[in-house]
Amino acid sequence: MHVGPVDIYEEVLYAGLKNNVGFTSEEFVNVFRDSLKGLRYLFQVDDTYQPFIIPGGGTSAMESVTSFLTKGDKILVVSNGVFGDRWINIFKKYPVEVDYLKAEAGDYVSIDSVKEKVKQKHYKLITFTHVETSTGVRHPIKESVKEIKDYVDIVVVDGVSSVGAEEVKAKDWDVDIYLTASQKAIGAPPGLGLLVISENAMKHLREDNIAGYYLDLKNWLPVMRSMEEGKAAYFSTLPVHTVFMLNEALKLIQDEGIENRVKRHEKVAGAIRTGIEGMGLEIVAKRPEAYSNTVTGVMLRKAKAQDVLSEIVKEGVEIAPGVHPSLQGKYVRIGHMGWVTPNDAIITISALERTLKRLGEDIRVGEGVRAAQSYLT
Amino acid sequence: MHVGPVDIYEEVLYAGLKNNVGFTSEEFVNVFRDSLKGLRYLFQVDDTYQPFIIPGGGTSAMESVTSFLTKGDKILVVSNGVFGDRWINIFKKYPVEVDYLKAEAGDYVSIDSVKEKVKQKHYKLITFTHVETSTGVRHPIKESVKEIKDYVDIVVVDGVSSVGAEEVKAKDWDVDIYLTASQKAIGAPPGLGLLVISENAMKHLREDNIAGYYLDLKNWLPVMRSMEEGKAAYFSTLPVHTVFMLNEALKLIQDEGIENRVKRHEKVAGAIRTGIEGMGLEIVAKRPEAYSNTVTGVMLRKAKAQDVLSEIVKEGVEIAPGVHPSLQGKYVRIGHMGWVTPNDAIITISALERTLKRLGEDIRVGEGVRAAQSYLT
Amino acid sequence: MHVGPVDIYEEVLYAGLKNNVGFTSEEFVNVFRDSLKGLRYLFQVDDTYQPFIIPGGGTSAMESVTSFLTKGDKILVVSNGVFGDRWINIFKKYPVEVDYLKAEAGDYVSIDSVKEKVKQKHYKLITFTHVETSTGVRHPIKESVKEIKDYVDIVVVDGVSSVGAEEVKAKDWDVDIYLTASQKAIGAPPGLGLLVISENAMKHLREDNIAGYYLDLKNWLPVMRSMEEGKAAYFSTLPVHTVFMLNEALKLIQDEGIENRVKRHEKVAGAIRTGIEGMGLEIVAKRPEAYSNTVTGVMLRKAKAQDVLSEIVKEGVEIAPGVHPSLQGKYVRIGHMGWVTPNDAIITISALERTLKRLGEDIRVGEGVRAAQSYLT
Amino acid sequence: MHVGPVDIYEEVLYAGLKNNVGFTSEEFVNVFRDSLKGLRYLFQVDDTYQPFIIPGGGTSAMESVTSFLTKGDKILVVSNGVFGDRWINIFKKYPVEVDYLKAEAGDYVSIDSVKEKVKQKHYKLITFTHVETSTGVRHPIKESVKEIKDYVDIVVVDGVSSVGAEEVKAKDWDVDIYLTASQKAIGAPPGLGLLVISENAMKHLREDNIAGYYLDLKNWLPVMRSMEEGKAAYFSTLPVHTVFMLNEALKLIQDEGIENRVKRHEKVAGAIRTGIEGMGLEIVAKRPEAYSNTVTGVMLRKAKAQDVLSEIVKEGVEIAPGVHPSLQGKYVRIGHMGWVTPNDAIITISALERTLKRLGEDIRVGEGVRAAQSYLT
Repeated sequence: MHVGPVDIYEEVLYAGLKNNVGFTSEEFVNVFRDSLKGLRYLFQVDDTYQPFIIPGGGTSAMESVTSFLTKGDKILVVSNGVFGDRWINIFKKYPVEVDYLKAEAGDYVSIDSVKEKVKQKHYKLITFTHVETSTGVRHPIKESVKEIKDYVDIVVVDGVSSVGAEEVKAKDWDVDIYLTASQKAIGAPPGLGLLVISENAMKHLREDNIAGYYLDLKNWLPVMRSMEEGKAAYFSTLPVHTVFMLNEALKLIQDEGIENRVKRHEKVAGAIRTGIEGMGLEIVAKRPEAYSNTVTGVMLRKAKAQDVLSEIVKEGVEIAPGVHPSLQGKYVRIGHMGWVTPNDAIITISALERTLKRLGEDIRVGEGVRAAQSYLT
Repeated sequence: MHVGPVDIYEEVLYAGLKNNVGFTSEEFVNVFRDSLKGLRYLFQVDDTYQPFIIPGGGTSAMESVTSFLTKGDKILVVSNGVFGDRWINIFKKYPVEVDYLKAEAGDYVSIDSVKEKVKQKHYKLITFTHVETSTGVRHPIKESVKEIKDYVDIVVVDGVSSVGAEEVKAKDWDVDIYLTASQKAIGAPPGLGLLVISENAMKHLREDNIAGYYLDLKNWLPVMRSMEEGKAAYFSTLPVHTVFMLNEALKLIQDEGIENRVKRHEKVAGAIRTGIEGMGLEIVAKRPEAYSNTVTGVMLRKAKAQDVLSEIVKEGVEIAPGVHPSLQGKYVRIGHMGWVTPNDAIITISALERTLKRLGEDIRVGEGVRAAQSYLT
Repeated sequence: MHVGPVDIYEEVLYAGLKNNVGFTSEEFVNVFRDSLKGLRYLFQVDDTYQPFIIPGGGTSAMESVTSFLTKGDKILVVSNGVFGDRWINIFKKYPVEVDYLKAEAGDYVSIDSVKEKVKQKHYKLITFTHVETSTGVRHPIKESVKEIKDYVDIVVVDGVSSVGAEEVKAKDWDVDIYLTASQKAIGAPPGLGLLVISENAMKHLREDNIAGYYLDLKNWLPVMRSMEEGKAAYFSTLPVHTVFMLNEALKLIQDEGIENRVKRHEKVAGAIRTGIEGMGLEIVAKRPEAYSNTVTGVMLRKAKAQDVLSEIVKEGVEIAPGVHPSLQGKYVRIGHMGWVTPNDAIITISALERTLKRLGEDIRVGEGVRAAQSYLT
Repeated sequence: MHVGPVDIYEEVLYAGLKNNVGFTSEEFVNVFRDSLKGLRYLFQVDDTYQPFIIPGGGTSAMESVTSFLTKGDKILVVSNGVFGDRWINIFKKYPVEVDYLKAEAGDYVSIDSVKEKVKQKHYKLITFTHVETSTGVRHPIKESVKEIKDYVDIVVVDGVSSVGAEEVKAKDWDVDIYLTASQKAIGAPPGLGLLVISENAMKHLREDNIAGYYLDLKNWLPVMRSMEEGKAAYFSTLPVHTVFMLNEALKLIQDEGIENRVKRHEKVAGAIRTGIEGMGLEIVAKRPEAYSNTVTGVMLRKAKAQDVLSEIVKEGVEIAPGVHPSLQGKYVRIGHMGWVTPNDAIITISALERTLKRLGEDIRVGEGVRAAQSYLT
């Protein structure tokens, strides 16, 4: 129950067992093409959106957004935690002007305050974080974009901890750039950044953009277009094996159906939260509207986060430390994305109860699993 | 017989079959630490060099060199072909001043002309390409660096098609930054850029460097240092599975011994060149001093490169197109790196003979394999 | 939670990924030798016992016992169910005289009745079934053998569902032939029958034995001896890949330690039984002395066995039908052997509760998991 | 270039990576059913033939033929070497009367002498060996059966080293029992014996047959029938994983087409024999009519067989020792079956030349590969 990389289906891993496949082979080109199409389904966009598969992960996908910027552009970052702040750190390295809004730990920036800000100043680009991995807080993307779209040129959403597990409708919601990484709710290994870009945003992909070379999407665009037409193309060597695995994961997602997939995540997340509360603990996200399908922060009372992490591993479950600076050491995070099932929820609650009991935390042993089980029955 | 990604040992592929390993797990940290140490052996450097394993590949490793530059720095690129020119394209995106020297296809820039240039103007950084993948030409790195080291601050060598197959002694040769990628002569899948950096160069890793965020080695440095001490650290999610495979490949290299490995590549390369000449064709690299252990370009007379590529696949061998603009369509490239053996040389020559015969190329069938076999006996 | 083949560790499966290993290769010979030694540890015997690895499984291992018989020999079969009866069916095909004792479903034949029988008539060979897979009943082997050893020549124990999960001390208990198969508590794939044979029994391996050709251990003996000395030998091609996997499984068993392994199985079995009783159901084995570490039969009241099996699969857990003729359709079996953990116990009880609830069985939902969790805490 | 187990396609190996598939699962039942159908194609028979997949390999499949015999039956074994003699050894363990005809090493028993024998005495069953693995001699099955079919009840052919590489038409040729094993020209791992049985032979599958229990096809028949109808059935646990791999191999065979497959083997075998003769050595099979597509024996003059085997491994090629008693130590065997390609022929000849040269054998280095290459061009 990592927060990513997640547990990976064997079928996905085995798809990468290719010992001599060149990036110009027909087999690879077909798989790459299918993956691009798979991204359209995943993000719920049509052919007006351009999908990109680039090396790296969430951070490289985020930084590639600089391809749509030129010197002096104004940017607004809406940050609910560590990964919201990452946008600020990225833009600081570039000749642009960055403003930001920050929420306190466990909450998200209110729609009203974002709206107020964009009305005051014209921003070329605004960024949101759909699910803030550091706290498990989910931002109301659909509602937020609706309110601010008229005031900014390009709306970017970091969907690293949401795509594949939360409802995501990039086109319907009018998001220009929706991005994620291969290793989270998609359930493939890390190594790829994934984006879909609207026609509107693509118009801003200028020759004199401020991006570097490797993450300049202008360099990758001909590869994406050629591959989608079934013709090999080269800019820089892609992680061939990871693409094979991504494609298998995307196929499994299509087999399951994105709506079923979101429902499954909801169910597992609900069981976990019910189990947490059943044993008598609190969740980091402050209100049900901020709960996510993918990450749940659990507040500790007596037990030390580091002890919980190292002890629960002995119970066969891995979870992650809390990393929000203002709550550091006071909570742990349970990741529940990818191929998680109700049984994973039961195991996690069961293992957490046994661990916390041993560490002297004040919980009601057995009541967590019973509550989770009732939730699931 | 690709030019990369190459044929990969099963042991290497199987090392990546991990379905739930987090980047903070002890298992991963140990493997990462071993890989860093493995890089020191591979590049023949000691603890005064800092190794880096970053996502991406050759191009991302190249671009990360911007971490050592500040605005206005002067750079000299020594280019023997497409991948030498890539340095120019990278630096153009940054606020630096780039000069270059170019060789004609099949040759390398003479040491004298480089020396003359660096004496005329003080360059902060100079780049060489050890083996130019587009033509198979090997640059005399040791001799060149010796002549010019006194005149420049930082010497960078792109060893993408050399490291693991050619003699490379980064420290003895006084190279500051030697870099490669996982998918070439190391024999692992693509997805990682690999560098070793001298103490001298590390002094130039300044806060106000011109690099972006993802490829700023300043951000990766704490991860490398922490991992080498056996402690998990995070900047951005690494391609965990690819690191496991890299580590297995580096172990196999250490088992073989780097000197044996270079000799094996020399033998296979020699057999292939002998076979090519035995059947009556010419090699792209103009002089024996420019022959490489890893890539051999083969000039065609009548047959079209594209036909050769698609026909030889049917014979069970894949080779690559020639991509140097001035010779485009007139040659094909044989990659011979990684775990290649004398049997691979024989197969390649045998399949090439059968293919070219069928395509009506004027060759002496059977004489190529006989010559290669004699070379090997 | 099959009753076998069981869930297999990935490391075990991956050990079989060998695409060109001959049965005379040094690699295979070493692995075979290690496996023979591993069997001595597994069955707790010393060098006075001869281990055998033969193709097939439990049944072929059982039938190979005919290698120690000659025409007209008298045999006593002690049967607690379907797999006890299998001995009778085997011996019927041979020119020997077979007597038997049978227990009713859920029980084992009493030591007294066995003792009485062997005192009345001299048997060349007697067979016991350590754990009767059809009901999950464990026979008290140690105590039984102690009482009857003086009256029979060769004591055989079918340990198919016990070895690797129950305490087994073939030498200390003075058992002559202890056998099992690769796919049960050892946790390897099916395909191999495994035996250890005492010096005493080996004396009965005569030229004129009644065994066929393939299962005549006389033909396999030179292979076992040669392999243990590190020299390749051939009688008939062994399932090379399965041996590699068996060896990996045996290594993991040695890493865990057989005593820890037995304790782990006890814990998981205890949690499952506690869960079953917690939800209000009964166990097939009639008394705690007959409970096994590996298989638990669960009596159903209203729900049909076939429905339970097909429904619980949807909850991500597979269990097995009851196959004892006198209880057919009235119970299901949970296998808990190999690499099972407390989490598997929790999942199984949780999934079984959800399934039975849906099928209208009269159970206390949530109480099973709570009881199992309490047992484990 | 073993004589079996052979080099296995990765796709085949990966098909066995199943970590929790029970023998009653729908997935396994489907795969088993497909494999049974695949056998009909492989042996070129229709629904009047009953296919069997049983644990073990060639020898267990051979011994299972006793299922069609009763006490006192008369049998004729036509033996061309070690594996022909194996039939005699098997039948000796049973209450039947065995006669035999033997050929000298490198030859096969003439059709005339077989015909003469069966006219003299009525045999219930006659056995042939299609390709005698010990010498590489191919028996003319079609022609032989035609001549003798009227005189015997059941014609059995051991196709262990032929099925999947030689023309085999069990029905057209009127063979009653054609058998093979998974690890030879089919290209799957060892562990399974495979048979197809004519309606005529099935009539002889009597209750009172002389077979043992495990290899009594009467016990396996309900499993085969049930599985073919898509319903799980159990007699004794099958090597589930090996069946998955067999099925993948059979699918690849169907993809290639059996006629193309035979042609490919012919081509590779021809290239190897041409190479052997090109370097100046002789073949064990005495006449071209006795040459096989799968095994070639190579007579040595000075070099010792054992030295050749251990030296050629260093050249990356494994071959097998000669095992015919009358030529022991004087020849080596090259196996060329499964997924062999022309490149394998070239490598084998090339490696053999290099090896023999080093060992001082009197050969024409380079002429073998040149001849093989000419044959292939």
